[in-house]
Amino acid sequence: MKSKPEDSLSLHLRLRIVGSEKVALGPGKIELLALIEETGSLGKSAKRMGLSYMKAWSLIQTMKPLVETSRGGQSGGGGAKLTETGRKALALYRRMERDCLRASASSWKKLLQLLRD
Amino acid sequence: MKSKPEDSLSLHLRLRIVGSEKVALGPGKIELLALIEETGSLGKSAKRMGLSYMKAWSLIQTMKPLVETSRGGQSGGGGAKLTETGRKALALYRRMERDCLRASASSWKKLLQLLRD
Repeated sequence: MKSKPEDSLSLHLRLRIVGSEKVALGPGKIELLALIEETGSLGKSAKRMGLSYMKAWSLIQTMKPLVETSRGGQSGGGGAKLTETGRKALALYRRMERDCLRASASSWKKLLQLLRD
Repeated sequence: MKSKPEDSLSLHLRLRIVGSEKVALGPGKIELLALIEETGSLGKSAKRMGLSYMKAWSLIQTMKPLVETSRGGQSGGGGAKLTETGRKALALYRRMERDCLRASASSWKKLLQLLRD
């Protein structure tokens, strides 16, 4: 997630949830979840991200409680949708990003001023 | 920067300030700045980060207003210290990290609960 660019400098935020054997989430998986929510198709979502179908499939295998898949689907390549847990997880992650950027905005403004001078 | 690990999942935050031709800052450069502040030596700082002296040198060339270097130094390999601007930039970056983690803590707690279930 990026803040609104000011001058030529912009702030990029990356949140990753890292585990040993459990579900882990980062910007890539979150983008995939958001596209699944939007398109209802794993194939379309993979294509939009420039991923192979197999790569997208392997990513959702690491997020089992968050995504439901079905054979065939509207567009071939299998239907996919977020579970209730998946929708909540996506929303919480997005809120964390927004809250982070909001909370750091005043320091970011000062830092930008400092680097600009 | 990481939050305190709970269970086996932990939250990793990465802030990067990205520009076209100007100073850009991210976790690596910030670590280098913090080590320069601590050690007063570019050589020692590079060593602690597992970087070559040349690599560390090239990094500080991209952060000219933030670091002052001098020949020789206490430990050979050249002395280095943060400028007033460098100290302020380091402090602001750290504050942004802290503020981000604090602001996202309650959503992170909920997300953790969700992923744990």
